[in-house]
Amino acid sequence: MLRWLTSGESHGRSLVGIIEGLPAEVRLTTEMVQDALARRRLGYGRGARMKFEKDQVRLLAGVRHGLTLGGPLTIEVGNTEWPKWEKVMSADPVDPDELEGLARNAPLTRPRPGHADYTGMQKYGFDEARPVLERASARETAMRVALGSAAQSFLSDLGITTVSHTTAIGSVEIPEDAETPSAREVERLDADPLRCTDPETSRRMVAEVDDAHKAGETLGGVVEVVVDGLPPGLGSFVHWDRRLDARLAGALMGIQAIKGVEVGDGFRTVRRRGSQAHDEIEPEGAGVRRTTNRAGGIEGGMSIGTPLRVRAGMKPIATVPRALRTVDTASGEPTTAHHQRSDVCAVPAAGVVAEAMVSLVIAQAVLEKFGGDSLPEVRRNLQSYLASLPELGA
Amino acid sequence: MLRWLTSGESHGRSLVGIIEGLPAEVRLTTEMVQDALARRRLGYGRGARMKFEKDQVRLLAGVRHGLTLGGPLTIEVGNTEWPKWEKVMSADPVDPDELEGLARNAPLTRPRPGHADYTGMQKYGFDEARPVLERASARETAMRVALGSAAQSFLSDLGITTVSHTTAIGSVEIPEDAETPSAREVERLDADPLRCTDPETSRRMVAEVDDAHKAGETLGGVVEVVVDGLPPGLGSFVHWDRRLDARLAGALMGIQAIKGVEVGDGFRTVRRRGSQAHDEIEPEGAGVRRTTNRAGGIEGGMSIGTPLRVRAGMKPIATVPRALRTVDTASGEPTTAHHQRSDVCAVPAAGVVAEAMVSLVIAQAVLEKFGGDSLPEVRRNLQSYLASLPELGA
Amino acid sequence: MLRWLTSGESHGRSLVGIIEGLPAEVRLTTEMVQDALARRRLGYGRGARMKFEKDQVRLLAGVRHGLTLGGPLTIEVGNTEWPKWEKVMSADPVDPDELEGLARNAPLTRPRPGHADYTGMQKYGFDEARPVLERASARETAMRVALGSAAQSFLSDLGITTVSHTTAIGSVEIPEDAETPSAREVERLDADPLRCTDPETSRRMVAEVDDAHKAGETLGGVVEVVVDGLPPGLGSFVHWDRRLDARLAGALMGIQAIKGVEVGDGFRTVRRRGSQAHDEIEPEGAGVRRTTNRAGGIEGGMSIGTPLRVRAGMKPIATVPRALRTVDTASGEPTTAHHQRSDVCAVPAAGVVAEAMVSLVIAQAVLEKFGGDSLPEVRRNLQSYLASLPELGA
Amino acid sequence: MLRWLTSGESHGRSLVGIIEGLPAEVRLTTEMVQDALARRRLGYGRGARMKFEKDQVRLLAGVRHGLTLGGPLTIEVGNTEWPKWEKVMSADPVDPDELEGLARNAPLTRPRPGHADYTGMQKYGFDEARPVLERASARETAMRVALGSAAQSFLSDLGITTVSHTTAIGSVEIPEDAETPSAREVERLDADPLRCTDPETSRRMVAEVDDAHKAGETLGGVVEVVVDGLPPGLGSFVHWDRRLDARLAGALMGIQAIKGVEVGDGFRTVRRRGSQAHDEIEPEGAGVRRTTNRAGGIEGGMSIGTPLRVRAGMKPIATVPRALRTVDTASGEPTTAHHQRSDVCAVPAAGVVAEAMVSLVIAQAVLEKFGGDSLPEVRRNLQSYLASLPELGA
Repeated sequence: MLRWLTSGESHGRSLVGIIEGLPAEVRLTTEMVQDALARRRLGYGRGARMKFEKDQVRLLAGVRHGLTLGGPLTIEVGNTEWPKWEKVMSADPVDPDELEGLARNAPLTRPRPGHADYTGMQKYGFDEARPVLERASARETAMRVALGSAAQSFLSDLGITTVSHTTAIGSVEIPEDAETPSAREVERLDADPLRCTDPETSRRMVAEVDDAHKAGETLGGVVEVVVDGLPPGLGSFVHWDRRLDARLAGALMGIQAIKGVEVGDGFRTVRRRGSQAHDEIEPEGAGVRRTTNRAGGIEGGMSIGTPLRVRAGMKPIATVPRALRTVDTASGEPTTAHHQRSDVCAVPAAGVVAEAMVSLVIAQAVLEKFGGDSLPEVRRNLQSYLASLPELGA
Repeated sequence: MLRWLTSGESHGRSLVGIIEGLPAEVRLTTEMVQDALARRRLGYGRGARMKFEKDQVRLLAGVRHGLTLGGPLTIEVGNTEWPKWEKVMSADPVDPDELEGLARNAPLTRPRPGHADYTGMQKYGFDEARPVLERASARETAMRVALGSAAQSFLSDLGITTVSHTTAIGSVEIPEDAETPSAREVERLDADPLRCTDPETSRRMVAEVDDAHKAGETLGGVVEVVVDGLPPGLGSFVHWDRRLDARLAGALMGIQAIKGVEVGDGFRTVRRRGSQAHDEIEPEGAGVRRTTNRAGGIEGGMSIGTPLRVRAGMKPIATVPRALRTVDTASGEPTTAHHQRSDVCAVPAAGVVAEAMVSLVIAQAVLEKFGGDSLPEVRRNLQSYLASLPELGA
Repeated sequence: MLRWLTSGESHGRSLVGIIEGLPAEVRLTTEMVQDALARRRLGYGRGARMKFEKDQVRLLAGVRHGLTLGGPLTIEVGNTEWPKWEKVMSADPVDPDELEGLARNAPLTRPRPGHADYTGMQKYGFDEARPVLERASARETAMRVALGSAAQSFLSDLGITTVSHTTAIGSVEIPEDAETPSAREVERLDADPLRCTDPETSRRMVAEVDDAHKAGETLGGVVEVVVDGLPPGLGSFVHWDRRLDARLAGALMGIQAIKGVEVGDGFRTVRRRGSQAHDEIEPEGAGVRRTTNRAGGIEGGMSIGTPLRVRAGMKPIATVPRALRTVDTASGEPTTAHHQRSDVCAVPAAGVVAEAMVSLVIAQAVLEKFGGDSLPEVRRNLQSYLASLPELGA
Repeated sequence: MLRWLTSGESHGRSLVGIIEGLPAEVRLTTEMVQDALARRRLGYGRGARMKFEKDQVRLLAGVRHGLTLGGPLTIEVGNTEWPKWEKVMSADPVDPDELEGLARNAPLTRPRPGHADYTGMQKYGFDEARPVLERASARETAMRVALGSAAQSFLSDLGITTVSHTTAIGSVEIPEDAETPSAREVERLDADPLRCTDPETSRRMVAEVDDAHKAGETLGGVVEVVVDGLPPGLGSFVHWDRRLDARLAGALMGIQAIKGVEVGDGFRTVRRRGSQAHDEIEPEGAGVRRTTNRAGGIEGGMSIGTPLRVRAGMKPIATVPRALRTVDTASGEPTTAHHQRSDVCAVPAAGVVAEAMVSLVIAQAVLEKFGGDSLPEVRRNLQSYLASLPELGA
């Protein structure tokens, strides 16, 4: 059973994640993690912060000479800005005199709508929002990407590959008939300013970002994750929480700012009539094929062997330059929310985070179905399963 | 920690569910469960089967004299058709001679697109679809509703109430500005043929169902679950799998035929610009209020104290009267899918199932935050938390 | 991942258990479960209750024609005494007039030392012990045995077999050098009045039980579970909660009245010096062998391929005929504990329960290592693992 | 729900642990963790390694200014010897030329009996034992102690305190009638060379260690953990895996080298007759008291409010100076096990590790019963529960 924990505050010393249950002999290097993290910084519409958010990766445990050891794997991503925050975010107590007058230490008492700030203060009993926003921040997703890179390496050694692309920025969407990219097209997609597969739509998206920027606005959008090479039968219909679609939906909705999740054609399928909503089955060779992929590769809560497609809808960034109305919890007076960040749109990055979460869930489902403590053992069990599938009419 | 398991085959002896972790002193009776199950049979467009699917409820464990005991609670829903299926679905071996010639026992070798049939056969190594469809069937959701009725009773004793309504049938949707119903309106909604809050839309939905029926088609749709009376701070931002939205999304996507999930305004929020996408905060008395509820009552993965709203999109029923193309796995020849069921649309029932899943998830989050082994203890902890929330400016 | 829940009160309508995660194609019949339950009623020193505690077994879900279906399996064991308890233990409310005067319904306000009674009342807020003892009773273990019989069937199809025997009754112990029985000897052991492998010790145990009976006393003892045919590598050293010994210890200590657990020679090994405490390794053919089995088949938290041996120590039955001192919680006065049961010793039954728990844990570990959704798939993965183990010096 | 993961190899860069679910406002500093770790190095009979195993502690996440933040807490314990192992244990690939000739990198092909070495190689498919022993080593327990120190801080703020002491070294045991120490006596116990409460026994234990050292032998022993200040009702009888004794047994047996676990008088109680085996209940003021504590503070799987006592038996260190027989897996030839470590006995350290595991389990049970996201909230719920317990006869 694959399980993992992430930790770390946005301006803390470092982000740390541990993942337990990965088999031995999976390839992983510092560079592979850094490359994955670099992809998370991509995207038109990001502010200056992304530039100095360089990632100091250290593999602290679980890997030796580029191969996992079968035990828990630990990744640390250091905070390059730490010297500036060392006092304010110090784990150990700091002399109050030293803290006094530090602007960074001023209590944050103007909770931002759309963020965890206000409710987080209530839940944990804090009198300011700093302890909340430090953890609730999307900075934490860097660790999901780091852990996801290990899952992706594992899966790719089994022939399972993942990619994501942007299907909408605000109200600008790719054409309904745009072709779904395959995982071979990662480089092309990453090279696009918004990680969009359609160049014409991408240009309109850029214009939309520019326009929103001028208006002091922020934008959301939709990303799609595509997984190729899945065997049939990951997940199960036998219990709701073993359904692959349920797990994927939870993993995607668990990403900061995601408000909607779809599998395959999702809400479009919902509006269709039955005869146009499913993927008919045809014989092909000794097996079958589907002429459509409306279901997004999942039927009955299981992968069916066609490309898996899941979408996540992200709301506009809640820290809006045109500041939103709020209250000052210290004075009780109406005010406007603190604004510090200058991103207009983080959708392309969300795609990379979504890839990571999908990869972690798929890796979990693979290990559940095939077991195995080393990559060769998992691969052997997967291959003997595929070989055991009966031929049609046999 | 609340956990539960459901079991049972569609034509088996009975459905059984066990839920562990409910506190003692929660009210529950056979009648309460039966009433919940009766609501699941509601809805225009259901076939004849719903009529004889009467529910023989037995509370087998965990309740005494109408109050839970603190131990695992077990509910059985008997199958009134069992005598017809006793041989075919017998747990114990049956003399082959007795089975031979029973039409109900004929191997199902024409897997239905959109169902678990084909992949389920591959995954579990079956040479026909009977063992798959018996468990994958939506009949199983009756047990979720039964267990959900216990969760709902628990929550309602804490002032937390739940309702669902249908927001779309096929392409017929309620107006965007339709008012969200409250849990007080359950009876009115249940009385509507499609459990729709807007009478005019309901009439168009009925027409749409009639039209689809004539065309040999099936329909999907969208349901919304609304929860009133939630305290702020259920769920948490500290780890992805503790986010209330992540858990709700998993629970809803884990319902058969659901292909999309939204929190609050969902994909509509995604298309808005930042200044129009969030719920601004205003002082009100000693606390705050929100003038909008776009977020659906969840920020930072936590309930914020406003009504919670989540939507689930259901695909059209996959057993389409105009049968879909498939293969006969025994002969390898193309054919059409077996068709037995005559429902056009199961969306209103899906709303009731969605209510149940939402209630189970909320009950889990309540117990996680407030602990407690008896209803009075949970209530006491909840109330002292609410009393401890600071007044603005205090 | 194998998971299960049990439910039911001692005098309730029935005990019910659901186990989720068993592969398809495992053999299971009503009779197999009944046979397992019959073994739990064995043993010299049991009172009259065991006789009328006949077990009405029904397989409610998850099995068809003697083979599991891959979905959740549900077993019900009905209470033959139910008619006598129907009012007192009714799930639904009962007219108070009907309850009044029923001796069985009198509040139990004299909590028994050594039982859950007193603390259970405090924890759940009850003013009498009935709701506590109904669930805390060892009657619940019947369901563990029932579920364990499914796990045992699964394991035996993989060549893994389990047996238990009694190594001590009170202070009467089998000789230190007595040979460990193998799973082939189940019948011989079950035929012994105390399920003891050594006839001479068994005779002394019978005398000890008789003597205790005369003295109005009760007895505890020690049981050992032996598992043959395990592959090496179940469990893992990589995290504490994946260690097979940790899981077995939790499962055994989780049986009512167990106060001590040992793996292999346990506390005897603790007293030895290092050179006499471990199992040296010798080459044998292409593999290795151990000349001793002090470790009980587990090293580094993993099965090593030799017979697994674990022991559980049971305290004397807490309902002692010579009643223990307690208080009446209603009056606050000192009194003696209610006494109703006439067993002197339940150790042989505890062995059967321990077998069940061990089988469930081993089945879980097998599925974790080998995955698989059907018995043939699990078996294939297990065999290919065994075939992959390198020969010494190769 | 409290959950945690540890990671790290014995000679790796660092050990890292993350614990999720601790409430906010718990006191924790680097020094508190270092003090806890220093206690783990105590004890007569440890070799030289303990001396240079200085612990470089860093709190990487989850704490600010000495108080927890409610999110995941991360502790790193650096390896002071890392420069010597940097190449051999490098996470990233190392030029083979650089590795060649490094003695530390030589393949370990003589698996040690009593360790994970041999089976670990089989399970994970390694051709030498280095990747196994690096994780299986007891060095990992340093991280349990570090995480346990956070749990202990949490508990002590609720008035719950823990201590451990050594009750046996090899065959030298404390007198049966020795008084159980209380958590107030930590300093006195830590000052004893073997952390033994009885000075005379301690002297005999020192002699036993000296004797074993001269004989090229190693020793095991028994430790007892005592917890004072527990409220009644932690854990539950309603399901086996919610029993506090089951969880404690799993946690203790999950420590390296533990082969036996007892609750209260354990196997001594097993040999007693019923009238001498339980703790009778007497009225005392408005409540009750027990004149004995044979049960070790647990009845029906719940804490009863008296001091909790659990024991763990540790086998002798498996790396015996008089080397044990094994095989060379590369050549297939008989040989003796590699020997590098010079500890005779690690029992006193095991006591400190056992304290940590017990504290983690108790903290989990406290949060399950009382919920709460901040220390004040947990404390409030605990106190209102205690205040709600009825007076006798009321």
